[in-house]
Amino acid sequence: MTQRLFGFAGGEEGTWEVISMKSLIGIPLPSVRRVEMVTGDNASPDATWLLRGITSNERYVTRDEKTQLLAAQRGLARPEATHAALIPIRKNPAWWALPQDERRAIMEERSHHTRIGLNYLPAVARRLHHCRDLGPNEPFDFLTWFEFAPEYAVAFDRLLDELRATDEWHFVDRETEVRLRRG
Amino acid sequence: MTQRLFGFAGGEEGTWEVISMKSLIGIPLPSVRRVEMVTGDNASPDATWLLRGITSNERYVTRDEKTQLLAAQRGLARPEATHAALIPIRKNPAWWALPQDERRAIMEERSHHTRIGLNYLPAVARRLHHCRDLGPNEPFDFLTWFEFAPEYAVAFDRLLDELRATDEWHFVDRETEVRLRRG
Repeated sequence: MTQRLFGFAGGEEGTWEVISMKSLIGIPLPSVRRVEMVTGDNASPDATWLLRGITSNERYVTRDEKTQLLAAQRGLARPEATHAALIPIRKNPAWWALPQDERRAIMEERSHHTRIGLNYLPAVARRLHHCRDLGPNEPFDFLTWFEFAPEYAVAFDRLLDELRATDEWHFVDRETEVRLRRG
Repeated sequence: MTQRLFGFAGGEEGTWEVISMKSLIGIPLPSVRRVEMVTGDNASPDATWLLRGITSNERYVTRDEKTQLLAAQRGLARPEATHAALIPIRKNPAWWALPQDERRAIMEERSHHTRIGLNYLPAVARRLHHCRDLGPNEPFDFLTWFEFAPEYAVAFDRLLDELRATDEWHFVDRETEVRLRRG
Protein backbone atom coordinates (compact mmCIF):
# COMPACT_ATOMS: atom_id res chain seq x y z
CA MET A 1 0.00 0.00 0.00
CA THR A 2 1.32 3.42 -0.92
CA GLN A 3 2.28 5.59 2.01
CA ARG A 4 0.05 8.66 2.03
CA LEU A 5 0.20 10.08 5.56
CA PHE A 6 3.35 11.98 6.55
CA GLY A 7 4.39 13.99 9.55
CA PHE A 8 7.00 16.70 9.94
CA ALA A 9 8.30 16.84 13.50
CA GLY A 10 10.24 19.92 14.58
CA GLY A 11 12.45 19.77 17.68
CA GLU A 12 15.97 19.01 18.84
CA GLU A 13 16.40 15.91 16.67
CA GLY A 14 15.93 14.89 13.07
CA THR A 15 17.64 14.24 9.75
CA TRP A 16 17.20 17.82 8.57
CA GLU A 17 19.04 20.73 10.19
CA VAL A 18 17.16 24.03 10.19
CA ILE A 19 19.01 26.80 8.31
CA SER A 20 16.29 29.39 8.81
CA MET A 21 12.65 29.80 9.71
CA LYS A 22 10.63 32.74 8.45
CA SER A 23 7.00 33.57 9.13
CA LEU A 24 5.42 35.30 6.14
CA ILE A 25 1.90 35.82 7.48
CA GLY A 26 -0.14 34.61 10.44
CA ILE A 27 0.96 32.96 13.66
CA PRO A 28 4.64 31.83 13.47
CA LEU A 29 5.73 28.27 14.19
CA PRO A 30 7.97 27.95 17.25
CA SER A 31 11.67 27.85 16.35
CA VAL A 32 13.33 24.44 16.30
CA ARG A 33 16.81 23.15 15.47
CA ARG A 34 15.92 20.07 13.45
CA VAL A 35 13.07 18.48 11.52
CA GLU A 36 12.32 14.81 10.95
CA MET A 37 9.98 13.56 8.25
CA VAL A 38 8.00 10.59 9.54
CA THR A 39 5.53 8.24 7.92
CA GLY A 40 2.07 7.59 9.30
CA ASP A 41 1.66 8.55 12.93
CA ASN A 42 5.19 7.60 13.99
CA ALA A 43 6.27 10.94 15.42
CA SER A 44 8.49 11.28 18.45
CA PRO A 45 6.59 12.50 21.51
CA ASP A 46 9.52 14.84 22.20
CA ALA A 47 8.86 17.02 19.17
CA THR A 48 8.11 20.73 19.71
CA TRP A 49 5.57 20.60 16.92
CA LEU A 50 4.18 17.98 14.57
CA LEU A 51 2.56 18.92 11.29
CA ARG A 52 0.68 16.16 9.49
CA GLY A 53 -0.48 15.92 5.89
CA ILE A 54 -1.71 13.35 3.41
CA THR A 55 -0.94 13.02 -0.28
CA SER A 56 -4.07 12.93 -2.38
CA ASN A 57 -5.50 13.24 -5.86
CA GLU A 58 -4.84 16.41 -7.83
CA ARG A 59 -7.48 19.08 -7.38
CA TYR A 60 -6.76 21.37 -10.35
CA VAL A 61 -4.42 19.99 -13.01
CA THR A 62 -5.71 18.93 -16.40
CA ARG A 63 -4.50 15.89 -18.32
CA ASP A 64 -2.09 18.06 -20.35
CA GLU A 65 -0.62 19.68 -17.28
CA LYS A 66 -0.29 16.33 -15.51
CA THR A 67 1.53 14.86 -18.51
CA GLN A 68 3.96 17.79 -18.58
CA LEU A 69 4.61 17.54 -14.84
CA LEU A 70 5.17 13.79 -14.93
CA ALA A 71 7.59 14.12 -17.85
CA ALA A 72 9.65 16.83 -16.16
CA GLN A 73 9.68 16.00 -12.48
CA ARG A 74 12.15 13.92 -10.46
CA GLY A 75 11.60 12.11 -7.20
CA LEU A 76 12.59 12.96 -3.65
CA ALA A 77 15.72 11.63 -1.95
CA ARG A 78 18.18 12.22 -4.79
CA PRO A 79 21.72 12.14 -3.32
CA GLU A 80 22.58 15.63 -4.62
CA ALA A 81 19.38 17.17 -3.19
CA THR A 82 20.80 18.01 0.23
CA HIS A 83 18.74 21.16 0.72
CA ALA A 84 15.04 21.20 1.48
CA ALA A 85 12.19 23.50 2.40
CA LEU A 86 8.99 22.84 4.30
CA ILE A 87 6.32 25.43 3.56
CA PRO A 88 3.07 25.10 5.53
CA ILE A 89 0.29 27.38 4.31
CA ARG A 90 -3.32 28.00 5.16
CA LYS A 91 -5.84 29.65 2.85
CA ASN A 92 -8.63 31.89 4.14
CA PRO A 93 -12.36 31.06 4.32
CA ALA A 94 -13.05 33.16 1.20
CA TRP A 95 -10.89 30.75 -0.80
CA TRP A 96 -12.65 27.66 0.47
CA ALA A 97 -16.07 29.17 -0.23
CA LEU A 98 -15.27 29.61 -3.93
CA PRO A 99 -16.65 27.05 -6.38
CA GLN A 100 -14.20 24.82 -8.23
CA ASP A 101 -14.15 26.79 -11.51
CA GLU A 102 -13.22 30.04 -9.76
CA ARG A 103 -10.47 28.44 -7.67
CA ARG A 104 -9.06 26.89 -10.84
CA ALA A 105 -9.24 30.24 -12.67
CA ILE A 106 -7.33 32.00 -9.90
CA MET A 107 -4.68 29.28 -9.59
CA GLU A 108 -4.00 28.65 -13.25
CA GLU A 109 -5.49 31.15 -15.70
CA ARG A 110 -4.55 34.13 -13.48
CA SER A 111 -1.68 32.87 -11.30
CA HIS A 112 -0.10 30.18 -13.54
CA HIS A 113 0.80 28.06 -10.53
CA THR A 114 1.61 24.94 -12.56
CA ARG A 115 3.50 26.82 -15.26
CA ILE A 116 5.67 28.61 -12.66
CA GLY A 117 6.47 25.28 -11.01
CA LEU A 118 7.31 23.64 -14.35
CA ASN A 119 10.06 26.21 -14.93
CA TYR A 120 11.93 24.83 -11.92
CA LEU A 121 11.71 21.15 -12.85
CA PRO A 122 13.55 18.84 -12.59
CA ALA A 123 15.86 20.80 -10.25
CA VAL A 124 13.27 21.22 -7.50
CA ALA A 125 11.46 18.04 -6.41
CA ARG A 126 8.18 18.58 -4.60
CA ARG A 127 5.57 16.67 -2.63
CA LEU A 128 2.25 18.26 -1.66
CA HIS A 129 0.45 17.12 1.49
CA HIS A 130 -3.16 18.07 2.25
CA CYS A 131 -4.15 18.76 5.87
CA ARG A 132 -7.52 20.49 5.76
CA ASP A 133 -9.58 17.28 5.60
CA LEU A 134 -7.52 15.29 8.11
CA GLY A 135 -9.73 16.81 10.75
CA PRO A 136 -11.42 20.02 11.82
CA ASN A 137 -8.53 21.48 13.82
CA GLU A 138 -5.45 21.33 11.62
CA PRO A 139 -3.24 24.44 11.86
CA PHE A 140 -2.49 24.53 8.11
CA ASP A 141 -4.25 23.47 4.89
CA PHE A 142 -1.18 22.32 2.96
CA LEU A 143 2.41 21.30 3.67
CA THR A 144 4.68 21.42 0.66
CA TRP A 145 8.05 19.73 0.88
CA PHE A 146 10.77 20.67 -1.61
CA GLU A 147 14.23 19.16 -2.18
CA PHE A 148 17.03 20.56 -4.34
CA ALA A 149 20.81 20.70 -4.65
CA PRO A 150 22.50 23.66 -2.87
CA GLU A 151 23.32 25.38 -6.19
CA TYR A 152 19.58 25.75 -6.85
CA ALA A 153 18.85 27.60 -3.59
CA VAL A 154 18.81 30.99 -5.35
CA ALA A 155 16.50 29.68 -8.08
CA PHE A 156 14.25 28.27 -5.36
CA ASP A 157 14.05 31.72 -3.74
CA ARG A 158 12.93 33.09 -7.11
CA LEU A 159 10.25 30.37 -7.40
CA LEU A 160 8.86 31.39 -4.01
CA ASP A 161 8.91 35.08 -4.96
CA GLU A 162 7.01 34.34 -8.16
CA LEU A 163 4.32 32.30 -6.39
CA ARG A 164 3.93 34.83 -3.59
CA ALA A 165 3.35 37.61 -6.15
CA THR A 166 0.32 35.84 -7.65
CA ASP A 167 -3.38 36.54 -7.13
CA GLU A 168 -3.65 33.09 -5.56
CA TRP A 169 -1.43 34.20 -2.66
CA HIS A 170 -3.91 36.92 -1.64
CA PHE A 171 -5.91 34.05 -0.14
CA VAL A 172 -3.02 32.76 2.00
CA ASP A 173 -3.52 33.81 5.62
CA ARG A 174 -0.81 31.76 7.31
CA GLU A 175 2.57 30.81 5.88
CA THR A 176 5.88 29.78 7.37
CA GLU A 177 9.04 28.87 5.48
CA VAL A 178 11.47 26.39 7.01
CA ARG A 179 14.76 26.00 5.13
CA LEU A 180 16.79 22.88 5.83
CA ARG A 181 19.90 20.93 4.95
CA ARG A 182 20.49 17.25 5.38
CA GLY A 183 22.77 16.02 8.17
CA MET B 1 -16.73 27.26 14.54
CA THR B 2 -18.70 25.26 12.00
CA GLN B 3 -18.95 21.57 12.77
CA ARG B 4 -17.26 19.64 9.95
CA LEU B 5 -16.45 16.19 11.34
CA PHE B 6 -19.36 13.75 11.69
CA GLY B 7 -19.64 10.11 12.61
CA PHE B 8 -22.31 7.55 11.83
CA ALA B 9 -22.41 4.84 14.47
CA GLY B 10 -24.29 1.64 13.68
CA GLY B 11 -25.35 -0.66 16.52
CA GLU B 12 -28.18 -1.39 18.91
CA GLU B 13 -28.88 2.24 19.74
CA GLY B 14 -29.46 5.52 17.96
CA THR B 15 -32.04 8.04 16.79
CA TRP B 16 -32.47 6.32 13.42
CA GLU B 17 -34.06 2.89 13.06
CA VAL B 18 -32.73 0.79 10.20
CA ILE B 19 -35.42 -0.15 7.68
CA SER B 20 -33.05 -1.99 5.35
CA MET B 21 -29.39 -2.41 4.50
CA LYS B 22 -28.30 -3.37 1.02
CA SER B 23 -24.78 -3.96 -0.26
CA LEU B 24 -24.50 -2.94 -3.93
CA ILE B 25 -20.83 -3.77 -4.52
CA GLY B 26 -17.81 -4.66 -2.39
CA ILE B 27 -17.60 -5.84 1.19
CA PRO B 28 -20.95 -5.37 3.01
CA LEU B 29 -21.27 -3.47 6.27
CA PRO B 30 -22.36 -5.64 9.21
CA SER B 31 -26.09 -5.44 9.87
CA VAL B 32 -27.23 -3.18 12.69
CA ARG B 33 -30.60 -2.15 14.14
CA ARG B 34 -30.01 1.55 14.65
CA VAL B 35 -27.73 4.39 13.56
CA GLU B 36 -26.73 7.51 15.47
CA MET B 37 -25.24 10.57 13.83
CA VAL B 38 -22.57 12.07 16.08
CA THR B 39 -20.46 15.20 15.84
CA GLY B 40 -16.70 15.18 16.10
CA ASP B 41 -15.28 12.05 17.68
CA ASN B 42 -18.12 11.53 20.15
CA ALA B 43 -19.14 8.02 19.14
CA SER B 44 -20.29 5.41 21.60
CA PRO B 45 -17.68 2.70 22.17
CA ASP B 46 -20.51 0.15 21.93
CA ALA B 47 -21.14 0.76 18.23
CA THR B 48 -20.75 -2.16 15.82
CA TRP B 49 -19.25 0.18 13.27
CA LEU B 50 -18.36 3.84 13.09
CA LEU B 51 -18.00 5.63 9.78
CA ARG B 52 -16.44 9.09 9.89
CA GLY B 53 -16.48 11.87 7.33
CA ILE B 54 -15.78 15.58 7.06
CA THR B 55 -17.65 18.24 5.13
CA SER B 56 -15.36 20.15 2.81
CA ASN B 57 -15.18 22.53 -0.12
CA GLU B 58 -16.85 21.55 -3.37
CA ARG B 59 -14.61 19.67 -5.75
CA TYR B 60 -16.51 19.95 -9.04
CA VAL B 61 -19.36 22.45 -9.10
CA THR B 62 -19.11 25.71 -10.99
CA ARG B 63 -20.45 29.04 -9.78
CA ASP B 64 -23.65 28.56 -11.84
CA GLU B 65 -24.26 25.09 -10.46
CA LYS B 66 -23.56 26.22 -6.90
CA THR B 67 -26.03 29.10 -7.27
CA GLN B 68 -28.73 26.73 -8.57
CA LEU B 69 -28.10 24.26 -5.74
CA LEU B 70 -28.17 26.93 -3.03
CA ALA B 71 -31.42 28.38 -4.41
CA ALA B 72 -33.17 25.00 -4.51
CA GLN B 73 -31.91 23.06 -1.51
CA ARG B 74 -33.30 22.85 2.02
CA GLY B 75 -31.50 21.98 5.23
CA LEU B 76 -31.40 18.80 7.27
CA ALA B 77 -33.63 18.17 10.30
CA ARG B 78 -36.93 19.36 8.83
CA PRO B 79 -39.77 17.96 10.98
CA GLU B 80 -41.44 16.22 8.00
CA ALA B 81 -38.20 14.57 6.86
CA THR B 82 -38.53 11.44 8.98
CA HIS B 83 -36.86 9.12 6.47
CA ALA B 84 -33.16 9.07 5.76
CA ALA B 85 -30.48 7.17 3.89
CA LEU B 86 -26.78 6.77 4.57
CA ILE B 87 -24.87 5.78 1.46
CA PRO B 88 -21.15 5.11 1.92
CA ILE B 89 -19.23 4.67 -1.32
CA ARG B 90 -15.64 4.12 -2.35
CA LYS B 91 -14.24 4.85 -5.79
CA ASN B 92 -11.51 2.75 -7.37
CA PRO B 93 -7.84 3.71 -7.89
CA ALA B 94 -8.48 4.43 -11.60
CA TRP B 95 -10.83 7.24 -10.56
CA TRP B 96 -8.35 8.81 -8.17
CA ALA B 97 -5.58 8.67 -10.76
CA LEU B 98 -7.58 10.78 -13.23
CA PRO B 99 -6.73 14.48 -13.50
CA GLN B 100 -9.32 17.01 -12.40
CA ASP B 101 -10.69 17.84 -15.87
CA GLU B 102 -11.41 14.19 -16.66
CA ARG B 103 -13.13 13.52 -13.32
CA ARG B 104 -15.24 16.63 -13.86
CA ALA B 105 -16.11 15.52 -17.43
CA ILE B 106 -17.25 12.11 -16.22
CA MET B 107 -19.28 13.50 -13.30
CA GLU B 108 -20.99 16.36 -15.05
CA GLU B 109 -20.71 16.44 -18.84
CA ARG B 110 -21.28 12.66 -19.12
CA SER B 111 -23.11 11.69 -15.92
CA HIS B 112 -24.95 14.94 -15.05
CA HIS B 113 -24.54 14.27 -11.34
CA THR B 114 -25.54 17.81 -10.26
CA ARG B 115 -28.43 18.05 -12.72
CA ILE B 116 -29.88 14.71 -11.55
CA GLY B 117 -29.65 15.84 -7.94
CA LEU B 118 -31.29 19.19 -8.73
CA ASN B 119 -34.39 17.39 -9.99
CA TYR B 120 -35.00 16.07 -6.48
CA LEU B 121 -34.62 19.37 -4.64
CA PRO B 122 -35.95 20.58 -2.29
CA ALA B 123 -37.64 17.28 -1.38
CA VAL B 124 -34.38 15.44 -0.68
CA ALA B 125 -31.91 17.20 1.62
CA ARG B 126 -28.32 16.02 1.41
CA ARG B 127 -24.98 16.40 3.17
CA LEU B 128 -21.76 15.03 1.66
CA HIS B 129 -18.91 13.92 3.92
CA HIS B 130 -15.42 13.19 2.62
CA CYS B 131 -13.42 10.34 4.19
CA ARG B 132 -10.52 9.65 1.85
CA ASP B 133 -8.23 12.31 3.28
CA LEU B 134 -9.11 11.74 6.94
CA GLY B 135 -6.37 9.14 6.93
CA PRO B 136 -4.86 6.33 4.88
CA ASN B 137 -7.13 3.55 6.12
CA GLU B 138 -10.69 4.75 5.77
CA PRO B 139 -13.11 2.07 4.50
CA PHE B 140 -15.03 4.47 2.23
CA ASP B 141 -14.26 7.66 0.29
CA PHE B 142 -17.61 9.41 0.79
CA LEU B 143 -20.60 9.19 3.10
CA THR B 144 -23.73 10.86 1.78
CA TRP B 145 -26.59 11.47 4.16
CA PHE B 146 -30.06 12.14 2.76
CA GLU B 147 -33.30 13.14 4.53
CA PHE B 148 -36.81 13.25 3.03
CA ALA B 149 -40.48 12.86 3.94
CA PRO B 150 -41.87 9.30 3.62
CA GLU B 151 -43.91 10.21 0.53
CA TYR B 152 -40.68 10.92 -1.35
CA ALA B 153 -39.20 7.46 -0.72
CA VAL B 154 -40.15 6.24 -4.21
CA ALA B 155 -38.70 9.36 -5.83
CA PHE B 156 -35.53 8.80 -3.80
CA ASP B 157 -35.29 5.24 -5.19
CA ARG B 158 -35.48 6.72 -8.68
CA LEU B 159 -32.71 9.22 -7.85
CA LEU B 160 -30.46 6.35 -6.79
CA ASP B 161 -31.31 4.36 -9.92
CA GLU B 162 -30.44 7.33 -12.11
CA LEU B 163 -27.09 7.94 -10.41
CA ARG B 164 -26.15 4.26 -10.45
CA ALA B 165 -26.81 4.09 -14.20
CA THR B 166 -24.21 6.80 -14.94
CA ASP B 167 -20.67 6.43 -16.27
CA GLU B 168 -19.46 7.85 -12.96
CA TRP B 169 -20.76 4.79 -11.11
CA HIS B 170 -18.45 2.46 -13.10
CA PHE B 171 -15.73 3.76 -10.80
CA VAL B 172 -17.57 2.83 -7.59
CA ASP B 173 -16.08 -0.33 -6.10
CA ARG B 174 -17.81 -0.37 -2.71
CA GLU B 175 -21.31 0.84 -1.92
CA THR B 176 -23.79 0.11 0.82
CA GLU B 177 -27.26 1.64 1.19
CA VAL B 178 -28.71 2.03 4.69
CA ARG B 179 -32.34 3.18 4.79
CA LEU B 180 -33.63 4.64 8.02
CA ARG B 181 -36.56 6.23 9.77
CA ARG B 182 -36.50 8.51 12.78
CA GLY B 183 -37.59 7.18 16.17
